[in-house]
Amino acid sequence: MNKIHSRLMDEDKWAAIGEGAIKIILILILTGILIKIGKAAIHKTFEIRMKMPLRVKERREATLVKLLDNILSYVIYFIALMMILTELTIDVKAMLAGAGIVGLAVGFGAQNLVKDVISGFFIIFEDQFSVGDHIKIDQFEGTVDSIGLRTTKIKTWTGEVHILPNGSITQVTNYSLNNSMAVVDVGIAYEEDIEKAEQVIREIIENIPLDNEDIVSPPEFVGIQNFGPTEITVRVVAETKPMTHYGIARMLRKEIKLGLDEHGIDVPFPRVVMYSRENKDGKVNDKGEN
Amino acid sequence: MNKIHSRLMDEDKWAAIGEGAIKIILILILTGILIKIGKAAIHKTFEIRMKMPLRVKERREATLVKLLDNILSYVIYFIALMMILTELTIDVKAMLAGAGIVGLAVGFGAQNLVKDVISGFFIIFEDQFSVGDHIKIDQFEGTVDSIGLRTTKIKTWTGEVHILPNGSITQVTNYSLNNSMAVVDVGIAYEEDIEKAEQVIREIIENIPLDNEDIVSPPEFVGIQNFGPTEITVRVVAETKPMTHYGIARMLRKEIKLGLDEHGIDVPFPRVVMYSRENKDGKVNDKGEN
Amino acid sequence: MNKIHSRLMDEDKWAAIGEGAIKIILILILTGILIKIGKAAIHKTFEIRMKMPLRVKERREATLVKLLDNILSYVIYFIALMMILTELTIDVKAMLAGAGIVGLAVGFGAQNLVKDVISGFFIIFEDQFSVGDHIKIDQFEGTVDSIGLRTTKIKTWTGEVHILPNGSITQVTNYSLNNSMAVVDVGIAYEEDIEKAEQVIREIIENIPLDNEDIVSPPEFVGIQNFGPTEITVRVVAETKPMTHYGIARMLRKEIKLGLDEHGIDVPFPRVVMYSRENKDGKVNDKGEN
Amino acid sequence: MNKIHSRLMDEDKWAAIGEGAIKIILILILTGILIKIGKAAIHKTFEIRMKMPLRVKERREATLVKLLDNILSYVIYFIALMMILTELTIDVKAMLAGAGIVGLAVGFGAQNLVKDVISGFFIIFEDQFSVGDHIKIDQFEGTVDSIGLRTTKIKTWTGEVHILPNGSITQVTNYSLNNSMAVVDVGIAYEEDIEKAEQVIREIIENIPLDNEDIVSPPEFVGIQNFGPTEITVRVVAETKPMTHYGIARMLRKEIKLGLDEHGIDVPFPRVVMYSRENKDGKVNDKGEN
Amino acid sequence: MNKIHSRLMDEDKWAAIGEGAIKIILILILTGILIKIGKAAIHKTFEIRMKMPLRVKERREATLVKLLDNILSYVIYFIALMMILTELTIDVKAMLAGAGIVGLAVGFGAQNLVKDVISGFFIIFEDQFSVGDHIKIDQFEGTVDSIGLRTTKIKTWTGEVHILPNGSITQVTNYSLNNSMAVVDVGIAYEEDIEKAEQVIREIIENIPLDNEDIVSPPEFVGIQNFGPTEITVRVVAETKPMTHYGIARMLRKEIKLGLDEHGIDVPFPRVVMYSRENKDGKVNDKGEN
Amino acid sequence: MNKIHSRLMDEDKWAAIGEGAIKIILILILTGILIKIGKAAIHKTFEIRMKMPLRVKERREATLVKLLDNILSYVIYFIALMMILTELTIDVKAMLAGAGIVGLAVGFGAQNLVKDVISGFFIIFEDQFSVGDHIKIDQFEGTVDSIGLRTTKIKTWTGEVHILPNGSITQVTNYSLNNSMAVVDVGIAYEEDIEKAEQVIREIIENIPLDNEDIVSPPEFVGIQNFGPTEITVRVVAETKPMTHYGIARMLRKEIKLGLDEHGIDVPFPRVVMYSRENKDGKVNDKGEN
Amino acid sequence: MNKIHSRLMDEDKWAAIGEGAIKIILILILTGILIKIGKAAIHKTFEIRMKMPLRVKERREATLVKLLDNILSYVIYFIALMMILTELTIDVKAMLAGAGIVGLAVGFGAQNLVKDVISGFFIIFEDQFSVGDHIKIDQFEGTVDSIGLRTTKIKTWTGEVHILPNGSITQVTNYSLNNSMAVVDVGIAYEEDIEKAEQVIREIIENIPLDNEDIVSPPEFVGIQNFGPTEITVRVVAETKPMTHYGIARMLRKEIKLGLDEHGIDVPFPRVVMYSRENKDGKVNDKGEN
Repeated sequence: MNKIHSRLMDEDKWAAIGEGAIKIILILILTGILIKIGKAAIHKTFEIRMKMPLRVKERREATLVKLLDNILSYVIYFIALMMILTELTIDVKAMLAGAGIVGLAVGFGAQNLVKDVISGFFIIFEDQFSVGDHIKIDQFEGTVDSIGLRTTKIKTWTGEVHILPNGSITQVTNYSLNNSMAVVDVGIAYEEDIEKAEQVIREIIENIPLDNEDIVSPPEFVGIQNFGPTEITVRVVAETKPMTHYGIARMLRKEIKLGLDEHGIDVPFPRVVMYSRENKDGKVNDKGEN
Repeated sequence: MNKIHSRLMDEDKWAAIGEGAIKIILILILTGILIKIGKAAIHKTFEIRMKMPLRVKERREATLVKLLDNILSYVIYFIALMMILTELTIDVKAMLAGAGIVGLAVGFGAQNLVKDVISGFFIIFEDQFSVGDHIKIDQFEGTVDSIGLRTTKIKTWTGEVHILPNGSITQVTNYSLNNSMAVVDVGIAYEEDIEKAEQVIREIIENIPLDNEDIVSPPEFVGIQNFGPTEITVRVVAETKPMTHYGIARMLRKEIKLGLDEHGIDVPFPRVVMYSRENKDGKVNDKGEN
Repeated sequence: MNKIHSRLMDEDKWAAIGEGAIKIILILILTGILIKIGKAAIHKTFEIRMKMPLRVKERREATLVKLLDNILSYVIYFIALMMILTELTIDVKAMLAGAGIVGLAVGFGAQNLVKDVISGFFIIFEDQFSVGDHIKIDQFEGTVDSIGLRTTKIKTWTGEVHILPNGSITQVTNYSLNNSMAVVDVGIAYEEDIEKAEQVIREIIENIPLDNEDIVSPPEFVGIQNFGPTEITVRVVAETKPMTHYGIARMLRKEIKLGLDEHGIDVPFPRVVMYSRENKDGKVNDKGEN
Repeated sequence: MNKIHSRLMDEDKWAAIGEGAIKIILILILTGILIKIGKAAIHKTFEIRMKMPLRVKERREATLVKLLDNILSYVIYFIALMMILTELTIDVKAMLAGAGIVGLAVGFGAQNLVKDVISGFFIIFEDQFSVGDHIKIDQFEGTVDSIGLRTTKIKTWTGEVHILPNGSITQVTNYSLNNSMAVVDVGIAYEEDIEKAEQVIREIIENIPLDNEDIVSPPEFVGIQNFGPTEITVRVVAETKPMTHYGIARMLRKEIKLGLDEHGIDVPFPRVVMYSRENKDGKVNDKGEN
Repeated sequence: MNKIHSRLMDEDKWAAIGEGAIKIILILILTGILIKIGKAAIHKTFEIRMKMPLRVKERREATLVKLLDNILSYVIYFIALMMILTELTIDVKAMLAGAGIVGLAVGFGAQNLVKDVISGFFIIFEDQFSVGDHIKIDQFEGTVDSIGLRTTKIKTWTGEVHILPNGSITQVTNYSLNNSMAVVDVGIAYEEDIEKAEQVIREIIENIPLDNEDIVSPPEFVGIQNFGPTEITVRVVAETKPMTHYGIARMLRKEIKLGLDEHGIDVPFPRVVMYSRENKDGKVNDKGEN
Repeated sequence: MNKIHSRLMDEDKWAAIGEGAIKIILILILTGILIKIGKAAIHKTFEIRMKMPLRVKERREATLVKLLDNILSYVIYFIALMMILTELTIDVKAMLAGAGIVGLAVGFGAQNLVKDVISGFFIIFEDQFSVGDHIKIDQFEGTVDSIGLRTTKIKTWTGEVHILPNGSITQVTNYSLNNSMAVVDVGIAYEEDIEKAEQVIREIIENIPLDNEDIVSPPEFVGIQNFGPTEITVRVVAETKPMTHYGIARMLRKEIKLGLDEHGIDVPFPRVVMYSRENKDGKVNDKGEN
Repeated sequence: MNKIHSRLMDEDKWAAIGEGAIKIILILILTGILIKIGKAAIHKTFEIRMKMPLRVKERREATLVKLLDNILSYVIYFIALMMILTELTIDVKAMLAGAGIVGLAVGFGAQNLVKDVISGFFIIFEDQFSVGDHIKIDQFEGTVDSIGLRTTKIKTWTGEVHILPNGSITQVTNYSLNNSMAVVDVGIAYEEDIEKAEQVIREIIENIPLDNEDIVSPPEFVGIQNFGPTEITVRVVAETKPMTHYGIARMLRKEIKLGLDEHGIDVPFPRVVMYSRENKDGKVNDKGEN
C-alpha cells in the first residue's frame, strides 16, 4: 500500500504516468493502423499473384488469405502487448521465470495453445480441408469459414458458427474432395410384380433430362436393398458434383413419384393383418372358448 | 497450545489483537468503497468513449464493461486478502514455499484457475462470443449474460443461469454471428397431386406480406425432402435476422396452414392398410385355413 | 514385539498410559464443548449483524452461517487430532516426511482434498449459488442444503440428499437467480379453425385472474409451436417468480382445459386413417387382387 | 540353485526350517485368538458406553462397531504378516527400497490403497452415510451393510451385496436423512369434468385413515401435472418417514382406485380416432379417388 | 554379423551350444515334473487339513487350492525362465538396467502386472468373493471359476468364460452372500374388483406347498406396484436361498397362473378405445365436417 | 546442402554409394531367404514333435506355430533394418540418445509397443485363448486367426478380420472352453391350458432323436420364463458342444414348431382389446356423451 | 522497435533483405521441381519393378507408391523449411533448446506426431491394410485411399473422405482379406407348412444360375433363425468374393421373392388379434359389465 500512496503524492510520478498513458494510446493507434495496412497488403498481393504463373491451387487461395490475416493480427497484437507491458514497467519474463508454481501452471496452459498451433499447421500443410469445403468434425458439420492459427470456424447452412480449437480436431470428414452420391430409396408393395416395378423405375430414370450440370453420371437402379416388414425397398443412386446431392435427390424423388403415379404403382402404406373376434359372452369364455 | 494460552494471558497481545481487528475492519470498508468507485469509473469511461471516434465495436462494449467489473473486484479483493493475512501475521509465501506436499497440491489446484483465465482471455481476444450473443456450449444453450476472468454465465429464455468455468469451454456454437434460417416441414399425402400441392404452397408463400423486418430473404419452396412411411415431406425455408427464426417459423406455419385449408389440401394423418379376417371356427383353422 | 512386551511389564509405562488416556478423554470433552460454544457464537454474531448497517446480502447469510459451522468443526477436530497423536507420541510430520513412497501416495490423496477446498472457496466467493437456491449439477437437481469446505449438499423435493465433493462441481445451473417461465403446450386438431382456436385461448388467458403474486407478467399466446403427426401444438407462456412455474403451469393447464371445454374445442386424440380390405378368397389372391 | 542345493544338504538348516515352521504356526494361532479377543472387547465397550452420558448418536454406533472390527483385523494381520516375513528372513523394506522399477510400481499400486483409506475416513468423519442408511452410489442402490477402511458394502432388498472401494465413491445420494415423498400419478380422461374429478380425489384422500405412523403429513392433491396424448395426469403426494414411501404409495394407489370406482370415474385406456375407408375398386383409385 | 559368423565357424562353440540345449531340455522336463508334484502336494495338504481343527471356512477351501496351483506354476516357470536365460548367457538384470528408455517402458508395463497382483491379494484377503460364488463385475455376470494372482475367471450358465485382469475389478456385486428374492409381477385389469383379486392371490400363495427347501420365507402379497396404461400391476415376493430365485419365481408364476384361471381372473391384454368415423364424402369434408 | 553437393561431385563417393546399394540389396535378398528357411524349420519341428512323448496340448500347437512365424519375421527384419542403417552410416543409438525431446517422444511411442508385447506374452502364457477359439473382446467377436507378438487377429463368420493390438485386450470372453447352451423361448397364449402345453412340449423334446453328437445333454423344459403382455414365454434348453448351440437351437426350433402344429397349439400373435365407439353426432358430444 | 526502425533506415540491410527474398523464392521453385522429379522417379521405378522377379505382393504396390510420394514431400518440404529459416537468420535449434517452458510444450506437441509416425510404420510393416482395402476404424468405414506417414485417408462409396491420424487407429476391421458372406433373412408366416416352405426355398436357391464369378460357394439354406412375434425368420447364406456380398444379396433377394411368388408363399405382414367390444351403454358399465 505504501507504493500506491507514495505514487499518489509524488508529482514526478504523475508526469511519468501521463507520459506512459500517452505512449500506450499511441501504441494502440499504431496497432490499429498497422493491422489495416497489413491486411490491405495481403489482399493486394494475392490479387497480383492471380496474374502470375507460380500459383497455388485456387481452392487454397481463400484459406491462405484468411490465415495470413489471422497471423498478422496475432503478431501485431503480441508486439503491442509486450510494448505496453514494458511501458508499465512489468517484466514479463522475470515474472514467469520467478514464481515456480505459477510458471508451471502457465506452462501447462500454454501447452494447449502450442498444441492448437501445431495441429493448425498440419491441417493447412496436408491440405486436410480448405476454406469453403464442406466438412464434419465430431458432431459439427458445415462449411469451413476460416482456418486460423488457433481455431477453425465452421458455418452451417442454418447460420450457426461452430468455433473449434485446432487441437481438438483429430478425425475429419471432408465432403468436398470427391463427387457425392444422391441416394433415393423407394418402397414397393410386396404384392406388386417386382420385375415390372423395376422396369418402370428404369424407364423413369432413363427419361430424366440430364441437362443439370451437377449430375456426373446418370441415375442407376441398384436393386432390392431390403425386405421391410410391409414393403420391399429398392434403391436408385446418381453420382453428382460435391455437395449437390441434396438437390439432385429432391429432383429425383419428384420425378420418380410422378412416374410411378403415371404407371399406377403406389408407395405402400404400413399394413397389418387383423383377426377380429367378437365378444358376446362373459369374460371367462372370452379367451377360453376361442 | 502454549501460544494460544500465553496470548490469552498477555495484555499487550490483547491490545495488538484489538488494533489488528480495527485495521481489518477498515480494510474491509475501504475494499467496499473502492469497488463502488471503480465500477462507477468504468461505467463513466464507457459513456464518454461513446462520443469519441476511436471505438470498439458496439457489440463488444457490454462484454468489456462486465469484464472490467469482474477484474476490478478480483484485484481489489486479492489485495485486501493479502493485507488482512499480513495483519494476522500469516506469511503466505513462506507457507506455500515451505510445505512440499501442500505446495504441490495447491499448485495443481491453481493450475485449473490459470487455465480458466487463459481460456477466458482467448474467448474475448478472438471475439468468439460477446455478452448478448445466443450460444451453445456442450448441452448448455442460451444468451451470454457475462464473460468473467474465470467463468462465463449463460441465461436461457426460461430463466436458468448456466455457470461454466472458462477452462471447460472448448467447442462453442454461436447463433448470433450470421442470419438464421426458418425451416418449416409440411406433410403432403401420397395421393395428392404433388405438382398441384407444390404450386399451391408456392402461391401461399409468395403472398405472405414481407413487412416483417426480421425476414432477410423471402420464403422459398425447396422441394421434396423425404418419402415418409405415409406422407411426403416438403420443405419451406426463409432467411431471417439472427435468432428470430423461431418467430418467423411460427408465422409461416400459421400462413401455410390457413392457405392449405383454403385450397382443400390436408396434412395427412398416419395411415395403415388393414386386412381383416373374421374368426368363425375353432382355433386351429384360424390360421391354417386362410 | 519386544517393545510391546517390555511395555506390558514396566509399571511406569502403565502409569504413563493411564495419564495419556485421561488427557485424551479431556481433549475429547474439551473439543465437544468448544464446538458447541463456537457454533453458538457464530449464530449470535449473525443475529447482531442483522441490526447493523454493513451487511452482506440476506441471501448469503444462511450460506455463511453453515459454512462457518463447517470450518469451525474442521479446525477444532484437526487441532484435537494433532494433540491426541502427540499424546500417543506419534510424530506425524516425521512419518510423512520419512517414508518416501507413503508420503507421495498421501500427497496425491491430499491433492483431491485441496482441490475440493479451492473449488468450494470460488463457489462462495463468486456467489455461484447460496443455501436455499434451486440448482442442478450434472444429473443432481434440488435445493442447496449447505455449502461446506469440502462438500455441497443438495436436497430434492422428494427428500433425497445428494452429497457432492466441491472438486467435482464444474458446470452449475442455477434456477433461482432469474424469474422462471411457465410453459403450457396445448394440442389443437388439424380440422379446427386455427384462427378461432387462437382467439379462444387468448380470451381464456386474458380472463385468468392475476391476483397470484407469483406471476410476474401475464400469460401470453406465442403461436404454433409444431406440426405434430395428428395435431397442431400451440404454446402459452407466463413469466413467474423463480421456481414457482410448476404451480403456475398447473393452474394455467386447469384454466385452459376448462375454457376449451366451454368453447367446445377438444384436445385431439391420436388419429389414424385405415384402409380396410376384407379377406374372402385364398391366400394368394389376398394381395395380388387388390 | 546352489543355495537351494546346499540348504537341502545341510542338517542345521533343516532344524532351523522346522523351528521357523513352528514359530509361524504359533503366530497364526495367536493371530486368530487376538482377533477374537479384540472383537469381543469392542462389542463389550459399546455395550458399556450405552449407559454412559458422553455418547455418539445411536445411528453411528453400528458404523463404528463394524469399522473398529475392520481396523482391528487389518492391524493384527499386518503385524502377523510382518512377523512371518521376518521369520522367513525376507527383508521387506530392503526389497522395496532396492529394486527401483519394482518399488515404483508397488508405490503406484499402494497409492490406490491410500486413496481408499482417505476417502473412507472422510465418509465417516463427515457422516455422509452410516450403517443402515439407504443410499445410492453411481448405479448401486441399497442399504449400507458396513463401512470399512478400504471398501463399503451395500445390500439391496433382493439380497445382492455391492462391494465398492471407498476411493471410487464420489457422488453419494442418501435417502435416509430426510422424510420421503410418496407420489401417485392418476390418469383422468379428457372428457371427464376435471373439477368434479378433482373434488372426488380430494374427498378420497381426506377420508384415508392416517393411523399409519409412517405418514408425516396427510396426502395432498397437487393439480394437473401433464396433458398426455389421451389423458390428463393429476398428482397426489404425501410426506412419509424415510424410505417408507413405497408402502404408503401402494396403500394410496389402492384407496384411490377403490374411491374412483365408487364414484364411477375410470382410469382411461389409450384412445385413437380412426377414419375407415372401405376398399372396393382397383388399386389405383384406392388413393387417387378419396 | 561377425559374431554370428565366427560362432558358426568355431567348433568349441558348437559343443557349448549342444551342452546348453541339453541343459535347457533338462530344465523344461524338471519344470514339468515339479509342477505335477507341487499340485499333488497342495491337494493332499488340503485333504489332510479337512480332518484338523484349525480350518478356514469350507467356502474358501476351493479358492485357496486354485490360487496355490496358480502361484505354484508362476513361481516355477519364473525360476525356469531365469535359468534358461542364464544358460543362453543373457544377463536380464543388466539388459533392463542398461537401456534407459527400454527400462522405463518395461517398468510401466510391469506396473499393470503389480496392480493386478495387489488387487487380487485384496479380493482374497477381504473375501470379496470365493470360487463358486455368483458375481457380477461390470457387464460380466456368472459363477467364479478361479481367482488367480493376475486374473479372475467367471463362467456363465451358457458356458462362456470371462477372463478379467484383477486390476480391472473395482465394483463387485456378489449374489451368493445373502438370500435372494423371487419377484413375480402380475397384471390385473382395471375393471376387476381389486379387493377380490387381492384376496384370490393371497389364497393362491397361501396354498402353495412349501416343501421346497429353497424357499426361506413363504411368498407374500406386497400390493399395487404400478398403474400401467391398461392394467394394474400387483407384486408377489418370496425370499429364497441364494441364486435359487429364478426357479422359485418360475414355480410361483405357474401356480398363480393356474389359480387365477380357476377363479376366472384373466391377465388383461393391452386395450384401446377407438372412435371410428366412416368416410363417405370428399376429402375436404373428411375433417372439416366432423 | 553443401554435403549433398560435394557428394554429388566426388567420384569415390559414387563408388561407395554403389557398393552400399549392392550390400543393401544382398541384405534384402538374404532376409527373404532366411525367413522362408526359418518358417520351414518351424513347421518341420512341429511335425516331428507330433510323434514325440513330451507334447504341448494339441490346441496350443497352432497358436505356437503362428506365434513363432511372427517372432521370426520380427527378429530377422529388425536385424536387417539395423544392418541397412549401419550401411547408410546412420548411428541409430546416437540419434536416439542425442536429441532429448525426440528421444522422449520416441520413448513414449515405444512404450505402447512394449505394453503390447507384455500383454501378448501373458495371453499365451496363461492360455487365455488359442488359435481357433471363438472369443469376444469388447465388441469384436469371432474365431482367433493368429496371436502375434503385437497384435491378435479375429475372424468373423462373415469374413471380416478384426486386428487388435494386444495392449488393448483386457477383458476377454472365451466361448470355446466349455460346452454351450442352446436356448429356445416359445410363446404360449394366455388362454391355453398351461399344464397341457407344458406336457406337449415335454413330449416333443423327449422324442427328438439325440443322434446328433453335438448335443451333450438332452433338451430340458425349464418352465415359465416370463409373463409377456399377450403371451406366456416358456423356455427349453439343451447343453451342446462348444459353439454348436446355434445349429442345435435351429433344429430344436423346427422340431418344436412341427410338434406344436400337430397338437394344435399356436404361437400367439400380439393381441389387443378394442372398445369401439361409433361417431354419429357433432364433435362436442363425441367425448362428452360417452 | 528499435531493431525494426534501424533496419528500415539501413540501405545495406535492404540489399540483404532483397538477396534473402530472392534466395527464398529460388528455394521454393527448387522445392517444387524436386518434388515433381521425385514423384516421377518413384512411379518409374515401380513400373520397372513390375517386370523384375524380386517383387512385393501386387496389393501392396499401390500402398508403397502413395507412401513414398508422401514421405518424399515431407522430407523435401522439411529441408526447404530449414533452409528458409536459416536464410531468415532464425536459429531453430537454439529457439527450442533455449526457452524451457516453450520447449516442453513443443515437445509434447511433437510427441503426437511421433506417435502417428510409429503407428503408421506398424500398419504398413504388419500389412494390416493396403490401399484399396475396404476397412472400418471406429465409426469410419470405406476404402483406403492412401496411407501416409501421419494420416490415413478412407473414402466412402458416397464420396466422403475420412482423414484419420495414424495414432488414433487402434482397432481395425479389414473386410478385404477374406471372402464375404451374403446373408438374406426371409420371413415365413406361422401358419405356413414350415417343411414345405423350406423345400421351396431350397429349390429356388438350387436353381439360381451360378455363372456370377463373385459367388464362391452356392447359397445354402441354414434353418429357422428366429421366432418373431408374427413370423418365423429363415436364413439363406452364400459365400462371395470380398465386398461383393451386397450385390449378391440383392440378386438373391430378387430370385427368392420371384420364386416364393410362384409357389404362392407370401412374406407375412404384421398380425394382430383384436377382441372388439361394442359400446352401447353408460361409461361405468363399459368396463364393469364385460
